[in-house]
Amino acid sequence: MKLLQGTAQITSSGHLEIGGVSATELAARYGTPLYIMDEAFIRKNCRAWQQAVGNHGKVAYASKAFCTLAMCRLVDQEGLSLDVVSGGELATALAANFPAERIYFNGNNKSLEEIELAVRSNVGRVIVDNFYELEMLEQTAARFKRPVSILLRICPGVEAHTHEYVQTGQLDSKFGFTLDNGQAMSAVKVALTKPHLYLRGMQCHIGSQIFALDGFAAAGKTMISFLADIKKATGVILSELDMGGGLGIKYLPEDNPAQVKDLVQTVVRSVQMACATNNFPVPQLVFEPGRSIVGPPGWVIYRVGARKEIPGIRTYVAVDGGMADNPRPALYGSRYSALVANKANAALEETVTIAGKCCESGDILIKDITLPRLEPGDILAIPSAGAYQFSMASNYNRLCRPAVVFVRDGEAHVVVERESMADLFRHDLIPKAWEKQQERLRVAR
Amino acid sequence: MKLLQGTAQITSSGHLEIGGVSATELAARYGTPLYIMDEAFIRKNCRAWQQAVGNHGKVAYASKAFCTLAMCRLVDQEGLSLDVVSGGELATALAANFPAERIYFNGNNKSLEEIELAVRSNVGRVIVDNFYELEMLEQTAARFKRPVSILLRICPGVEAHTHEYVQTGQLDSKFGFTLDNGQAMSAVKVALTKPHLYLRGMQCHIGSQIFALDGFAAAGKTMISFLADIKKATGVILSELDMGGGLGIKYLPEDNPAQVKDLVQTVVRSVQMACATNNFPVPQLVFEPGRSIVGPPGWVIYRVGARKEIPGIRTYVAVDGGMADNPRPALYGSRYSALVANKANAALEETVTIAGKCCESGDILIKDITLPRLEPGDILAIPSAGAYQFSMASNYNRLCRPAVVFVRDGEAHVVVERESMADLFRHDLIPKAWEKQQERLRVAR
Repeated sequence: MKLLQGTAQITSSGHLEIGGVSATELAARYGTPLYIMDEAFIRKNCRAWQQAVGNHGKVAYASKAFCTLAMCRLVDQEGLSLDVVSGGELATALAANFPAERIYFNGNNKSLEEIELAVRSNVGRVIVDNFYELEMLEQTAARFKRPVSILLRICPGVEAHTHEYVQTGQLDSKFGFTLDNGQAMSAVKVALTKPHLYLRGMQCHIGSQIFALDGFAAAGKTMISFLADIKKATGVILSELDMGGGLGIKYLPEDNPAQVKDLVQTVVRSVQMACATNNFPVPQLVFEPGRSIVGPPGWVIYRVGARKEIPGIRTYVAVDGGMADNPRPALYGSRYSALVANKANAALEETVTIAGKCCESGDILIKDITLPRLEPGDILAIPSAGAYQFSMASNYNRLCRPAVVFVRDGEAHVVVERESMADLFRHDLIPKAWEKQQERLRVAR
Repeated sequence: MKLLQGTAQITSSGHLEIGGVSATELAARYGTPLYIMDEAFIRKNCRAWQQAVGNHGKVAYASKAFCTLAMCRLVDQEGLSLDVVSGGELATALAANFPAERIYFNGNNKSLEEIELAVRSNVGRVIVDNFYELEMLEQTAARFKRPVSILLRICPGVEAHTHEYVQTGQLDSKFGFTLDNGQAMSAVKVALTKPHLYLRGMQCHIGSQIFALDGFAAAGKTMISFLADIKKATGVILSELDMGGGLGIKYLPEDNPAQVKDLVQTVVRSVQMACATNNFPVPQLVFEPGRSIVGPPGWVIYRVGARKEIPGIRTYVAVDGGMADNPRPALYGSRYSALVANKANAALEETVTIAGKCCESGDILIKDITLPRLEPGDILAIPSAGAYQFSMASNYNRLCRPAVVFVRDGEAHVVVERESMADLFRHDLIPKAWEKQQERLRVAR
């Protein structure tokens, strides 16, 4: 079955099992919707990245794809570094006792509070996005008397072939110092004058969910050429090149993303060739994979509910989640596949559209998918759900956000508990003044 | 100034004031991003709807636009009914002591738990979307020995002129019983056989953010014709017609939405004419406005941070929020306007693009807006932010969700407290088993 990756398998009775645990059993025990993460598969992906990169450099898991205490702990156990993009992700990593020196702090508009948290906690690298941040960081580092190692985020003018929302390396981008117009070189010169900032190298990131490797090769070449230019212009040899993330994953059976080792090899070769050409020493590389580590190992399961047949037009089958737990179809037009966890071997009988339960026509999870006949109570399982679903989930329509379980070797561990109704109004207050007004109103009546 | 509605005004010193409270003062006191709601304006909108509908029927505030304890209480104080679309919204209403008999329960895929909560709490009307729900509701009502008053959600085949995500009345819709193919009439006949369900009438909803009133008129006519058909086919005269919501609001200075009274009058006239034609008694109407009550009174304020100028291409100015607190621009391509709250009278100097702080190129709040020169620390204020922003907010990038304050007569009341970093991992757990593994690892080393 083309949808099965990692430890996922279909038992002889046609039940989906992940990490040796039955998905329908998980549904019964923890309720639905439920995010299920194949722990061994996540670890396997971490190791595949570590092995592919080897002594060419470092791997920093991009936590924005999926960030919880348990995930940070797992990443630490696996020896990877961690890429965070906000104070909240940093705080989560620190709460999980993730070693700060292995943290890379990205982001296009870090606040003073975030900068302070980063400096106070001695994060390994701050990736400086713009001049405003450069000044703020220098001042903060001076104030706390803590020198900070930095990379500069460069916008290399390389266009990745992907959805425009997640295409970040092109010239017209909110991220980083632009290479073409000399802004990047100016930033380097300014950074080198800052007494409390240690400029270690450069970072770029061309986009997300990328299948073609040529963009990565082009970016590598461009960045080395820039490092060589820096050497010429300033005499400084920078020894770190962070190539960001962006490797695509398989969402649909027909998707055929590149392998981790091929991506790394492509970048390494491109960098080595460019270094030879430019007579520049090969820098340590950093990769920031997020989706490719945590996406394929994730599943989301839903319980099937209402059905609406419109003869000659479409059959809608509704599940008990939707755009609140997975906004990607509505946001990017992302396509997903699915199987029926409690009858995965049943014959494919009908083409249906999987509708979410949000009160909005746009809440469609999968348009036109051929599946066994779905009945209320069936468990629909969507693979490759580990990245950018939990992390983007909302309480739209006041739906409670699902739990997350890690499964491995026949055991399940809840790593994020399901929200309760009471969580929905945990922070709500009713103005006290209103009670007095009501009182007055009552007296007046 | 065309952006000012409700109590919002610009002081002589060029500061934005809402409800008599300075927006910059609110920013200093409660931090940014911050949702600010003009309480008097919300109440004014409630009253405008009540007045327009008068004894033609009822107004049920569609809480999915913005649902908190305080908002439910306000709606109760104003005497409106309440439209909820989930157990979470219902639970919020009940926690605010909203009278259950004034609650309308909508939704295309209500779960058994939600149905049970609705029946147990004696909600006024359940709007039944499909046959599956009809059976489940009858069984639940029988089990609890509590008869339930219902409306049937009808898909009238009327296309509203709006974004396809929020267009719901067309034939190919996940919502309701289809009129054209006889499904709706079958549903009526089935509903009439259910001993524990009292069929009170019909409901339809053609879409959201609609400017042209012709769709509402067409829907009214269609629905009356259906009620007349029901009378012919079954002898039953149904006396309630819920026309849903969908009135558009002004997001941009050039937007010119219809007035509440014009929408109501259009529907009333269309319904009265159709009733005369069909010799059918005029039913009680129900309207479900959400956005038009709570959208225009809401503002969101951000603090300006980094700036990136790409000469000849674009200037990006980043703020401290974005798609996490307002996914609408990324999701629907929604356009917004803005003013600078601390220098609203300053000359318009430059055209910039307002970027959010999420690590994603798609996180752009406003593309190409002409504003006074923005400096770090300036407070950017976006109007018409009261609907579908707080309610759709996520913790993407692990950003904390903003606070909500109600302002009125120079006073501010926090109605939703800002999330803290600790809230981000409140539900997180690290598997205990891992500690033992770590221990073993340590011993082995």
